Amino acid sequence: MRIILDGMGGDHAPDEIVKGAAEASLLIEHEICIVGDEPRMRAILETVEHNPDRISFRHTTEVITGEDSPVQSIRKKKDSSLVRGMEMVRDGEGDIFVSAGNSGALMSAGVFILGRIKGVSRPAIGSTYPILSKSTAALLIDSGANAECKATSLFQFALMGSLYAKDILKIENPRIGLVNMGTEPGKGSALLKEAYELLSTSGSKFGLNFVGNIEARDIPIGISDVIVCDGLVGNIVLKMTEGMALSISHLIRQKFTEGLIAKAGAALLYGKLGELKKAFDYTEYGGAPIFGLSGAVVKMHGSSDMKAVRNGIARAIPFMENRTVDRIAASIQELSALTMNKTNE
Amino acid sequence: MRIILDGMGGDHAPDEIVKGAAEASLLIEHEICIVGDEPRMRAILETVEHNPDRISFRHTTEVITGEDSPVQSIRKKKDSSLVRGMEMVRDGEGDIFVSAGNSGALMSAGVFILGRIKGVSRPAIGSTYPILSKSTAALLIDSGANAECKATSLFQFALMGSLYAKDILKIENPRIGLVNMGTEPGKGSALLKEAYELLSTSGSKFGLNFVGNIEARDIPIGISDVIVCDGLVGNIVLKMTEGMALSISHLIRQKFTEGLIAKAGAALLYGKLGELKKAFDYTEYGGAPIFGLSGAVVKMHGSSDMKAVRNGIARAIPFMENRTVDRIAASIQELSALTMNKTNE
Repeated sequence: MRIILDGMGGDHAPDEIVKGAAEASLLIEHEICIVGDEPRMRAILETVEHNPDRISFRHTTEVITGEDSPVQSIRKKKDSSLVRGMEMVRDGEGDIFVSAGNSGALMSAGVFILGRIKGVSRPAIGSTYPILSKSTAALLIDSGANAECKATSLFQFALMGSLYAKDILKIENPRIGLVNMGTEPGKGSALLKEAYELLSTSGSKFGLNFVGNIEARDIPIGISDVIVCDGLVGNIVLKMTEGMALSISHLIRQKFTEGLIAKAGAALLYGKLGELKKAFDYTEYGGAPIFGLSGAVVKMHGSSDMKAVRNGIARAIPFMENRTVDRIAASIQELSALTMNKTNE
Repeated sequence: MRIILDGMGGDHAPDEIVKGAAEASLLIEHEICIVGDEPRMRAILETVEHNPDRISFRHTTEVITGEDSPVQSIRKKKDSSLVRGMEMVRDGEGDIFVSAGNSGALMSAGVFILGRIKGVSRPAIGSTYPILSKSTAALLIDSGANAECKATSLFQFALMGSLYAKDILKIENPRIGLVNMGTEPGKGSALLKEAYELLSTSGSKFGLNFVGNIEARDIPIGISDVIVCDGLVGNIVLKMTEGMALSISHLIRQKFTEGLIAKAGAALLYGKLGELKKAFDYTEYGGAPIFGLSGAVVKMHGSSDMKAVRNGIARAIPFMENRTVDRIAASIQELSALTMNKTNE
């Protein structure tokens, strides 16, 4: 199969993107086509070890930057790596698109070029959420694409997330939790009450193992395998996790370098803190799938370095190989059929 | 001045409530009137050291439990400690009401008995948010009363929180931050966009030092002194903080008891972890003011023990002494006048 990689997107493009692809080429069995300024990228590739049989290029002349307006840039910069790469997936020239570029532009290009799966009103970003105490991960969906959405979208997030958790995270019967301000039914906003109702009455028809409302307090200990919420809440969950990890790390570091006895423990502690940090590190957890598009797209963090790019590519492979997008489309179709029947009743 | 204490509310009432009041009576210069089953509470009081000049009782015969429906219970249980205590503040028999009872019932009793400040549509709960690295605290408002609210309510939360931060937290020019999924203007839901617009255009007229949108990632490091959000987001911020602190504590404890060398560092670390835990401990940070009511009300955590009750009472004193509620009412009146003028223009 063929991975299409946006060579020009991200803070460290094209250098780190090309180097990450080079590393990946030594490890994987698929072809990587890097889209962007070919002469420049070729020159970078020549400086590092790589498997030439696995890497090809597609030359483009324009670049969408982080400052560009998402919708305007994809309309105006037709020969950008982001637009051309997405078109290649649409046209069957590749099986997945991986990009560290402008998130808004990537989402817009996904919607305008690939299109949404029929029945999906809101594509969502799914982020891997590390469960520290268990060395496992959950999927947080939506982690930031939609500041607000409807209950039916939350149901779709649950459905898409559940299939991903089965296919990619290899969780047999993933527990689906709805983030709320209490566990009792009837808690929360009108949106959350409606979503709870939908998930508890219709979830099982779609193979969803809905475990009910979950409190934010229980997210870090792994109360559910799929964490369902709108993008605003998802962003807060993700950023609070990161912020608390940083804050506590700094605090402990600070406390352990005060005084002589404490200093003795510091060396030991630093190693352990490093393990904590790693779990939250974008370079380790690089690559968030965008769900609801008619094709596989993985968004990497804008500051992705070589290692993050290599990991983002590695993480994209099972999503591509399992054809999870096709399975999601089939499930959404079933869901739409049911909703249509209900409307006709 | 006179503190009215709900003797029958909370998981450990009346024992821990009365004992906490007894401890407080030795430290403070105000009177505490404990409302509830007088003979039972008197018997508890006799077993512990206290200042008899500072403690009085008001006998009631009914109890609202955690399982009672908020609105129904305050209508039916007229002679409950929660209803009578709130009435005493309304009738000028006391200057503040402190309760560890049913949160919903407390909020309902506040609205139905004390009433809202004119112009306030939504009372909010303000929680003290510990900033670990600085040993200071911020105010999180709303921390859970309103699952959803309007932009004008968020503006009022900012206004009320700012006055509290000045009066009680003794912060000269408190920084007001709006929790959002990015710092740029125009980020987030329609609600957040409207609230941002209101705060940035009209905030300074009311002495608000609005610092703009804040990301959840920066909350634990103290990016603002007043953290403004709706109750759903507030609950998630608070619970994520607690959950992450617990999760990281457990993880470090676990890692530091594996292996012989690690065990040597464990003893030292436990002490430091204790300090972390304390910062998040309800017994230390007991007592959340309810803002927007026509009287001072402080809600303690349901599981409050003697120490939490003592701290809750101590924390209530400056809120009462400063007559912060009157200052809030004056500010809200100014705000309403401005809004009315605008409507008439």
